Parts: sequence; C-alpha cells; structure tokens
Amino acid sequence: MKRIAIDMDEVVVDFNPKHLRVFNRDYNENITVKDLMGTHLQALRPHLKNEIIGYLNDPTFFRDLDVMKDSQEVIKELSEHYEIFITTAAMEFPSSFTAKYEWLKEHFGFLNDMNFVFCGDKSIIHADYLIDDNVRHFQRFAGQGILFTSPHNINETGYVRVDNWLEVRNYFL
Amino acid sequence: MKRIAIDMDEVVVDFNPKHLRVFNRDYNENITVKDLMGTHLQALRPHLKNEIIGYLNDPTFFRDLDVMKDSQEVIKELSEHYEIFITTAAMEFPSSFTAKYEWLKEHFGFLNDMNFVFCGDKSIIHADYLIDDNVRHFQRFAGQGILFTSPHNINETGYVRVDNWLEVRNYFL
Repeated sequence: MKRIAIDMDEVVVDFNPKHLRVFNRDYNENITVKDLMGTHLQALRPHLKNEIIGYLNDPTFFRDLDVMKDSQEVIKELSEHYEIFITTAAMEFPSSFTAKYEWLKEHFGFLNDMNFVFCGDKSIIHADYLIDDNVRHFQRFAGQGILFTSPHNINETGYVRVDNWLEVRNYFL
Repeated sequence: MKRIAIDMDEVVVDFNPKHLRVFNRDYNENITVKDLMGTHLQALRPHLKNEIIGYLNDPTFFRDLDVMKDSQEVIKELSEHYEIFITTAAMEFPSSFTAKYEWLKEHFGFLNDMNFVFCGDKSIIHADYLIDDNVRHFQRFAGQGILFTSPHNINETGYVRVDNWLEVRNYFL
C-alpha cells in the first residue's frame, strides 16, 4: 500500500480565515484572502510581523480553525487505498501540540493517531507522496511532492499542483 | 551526511528509575531494575497495569526524567559527522508533548528542534539508522535498526545491539 503524507495548515486546516479575522479585529484592518495572493500577511504589514506570528504562540489558536473544504471526505476515501499520515511542522510552534492533536482527533478521528507526525524538517518523512503548501518541504523529500494551492504559493512553478481536495481525489483515485 | 534517528525513552532518557520510584512509593514495593530483566513492570504486577501506565498520562511525568549516561557527550560528537534526529513515539501519550519538548531543549539544546519528531508508527522515519529499545519499530524501518539494551529487551536476538552510549560511539566513530 503506498503512503501519502499530508500537511495540516493550509492543506487540511483552512488557516487564513481565523488569522485574518483576529488581525483585522485587533488592528482595525480589512485585509482579505485575495490580498494574500503571492505574499504573506507579515510581508503586507512588516511593522506588525511579531504580532502576526505571535497569534500562533497562543496554545489555543490552532484548536478551532476551519476544516479545509472536502478534505475529510476525500481523505476518508483515500485511506481505503493508501496509508495516510498527517505530517505537520508543529515544532515551529511547540505550544500548539495539544491543540493540533485535539483538532485532528475531532475532525479526522477516523485516522489512527499513530499516523500523526509532529516534526520540523520534513525530509525525515518516509512516504511516497507529500501534499503540502510549502515548497521548501519538497527540496529534500525523497517521494513525489504535491503542491496544495494556497494564496502564498500561487506564483510557484515547477511542481505538481492541486487547487483543492477534489483535485487531490482525481490525482489519486 | 548520513542520518541517525534516536529514540527518547530508555535510550537518551533513563526512564525506569523514576517510574520504579513512584510505583514503589505508592504501592509499598521494592522492585528494582534487575527485576525488570526480560519483562515489564506491568507484566510483574498485572493487576496494577492501568495504574502503572497511568503515571505516563501525567503531563509532567516526562519533564524530570534522568538523562541516559554518556548520551549527551556522544550525541554531541556524533552530530559533527551525522545528521541527528530525535524520534519519539509521543502519540502514545499525547499529554507528554510539552514535557518531552522542554526536556529535549534542556538536555539536548545543542540539537536543532526542527530535528525533533513526535510520532507513533516509526515506519514514517526516513533515516539511515534508528537507535531504539523497541524492536517493533525496526519491522518496517527501511534503514539499519540498532537495538539499545534495556531491561525489557535483553532476550531479543537477531539485531545489532549496543549496551550503552560508549558502544554507540564505537559503532559510528
């Protein structure tokens, strides 16, 4: 059985809506996902970089993020044909461990939690495929990288790309 | 640079002394590490299995465990010649994430925390070597497994075995 490793943030977790909501509320702004195309919030507001990243150090921030559209249904279907691992760069925000684990148990409880991986450098991941929104994780990955479209990565070229979970289904099934 | 993945409990963490100390205190027993040869505490006291495992669900249990003799010095030396990753089956005790992370930062702060991996099924680990006390992790591991001697595994045969960290140094350097 071939193995698919799947990232969390901006792949199964719809990260931006909450991040923008709390930022807009706290700084009286009106930035939308469209403004993030080809960039990052911290690049748009560099003088607030520490505050923007700071939200992610709140131990509860990751607990109530939205589920990416169609990800549950498609991953459930994929899990009948592939070994599924969730591989997230949680070491960047160690305070997020518990919230990320509980979020996965709530929304992807049909997966075995022995297949959850909290790591940093994803070159440690032994899998046939890696679905991720960050191209840096593909550099030393031995398998096939699949770039999941996210506002910040729309200008990346040279990768197998999927725009949503229905495209992931088409790619694998 | 070749890569060595290293387990925590009973490899860099000297797990048994504290576990036996709290158990002996709470149940007025006098079990020693010698009694654990070829077995587990929960096999010796099956009627207390839940209590014995229960200690590990305390979020702070893993925070003040002893460092395995010579592990810091040898891993520091190895890290000049090999890429070192710490790979621990933390998903078995999700409440341990923070304590395990803080323990590593305290005692192995010279390692990059991007090289810490909290996982369950270690077949996800992409490395040339895996030093572990549990032979089950070697079954689907693609690299070379190295069994670190621990009381419970002394009767396992058919594996490359090291008895302590000085033997690890000899193996690699």
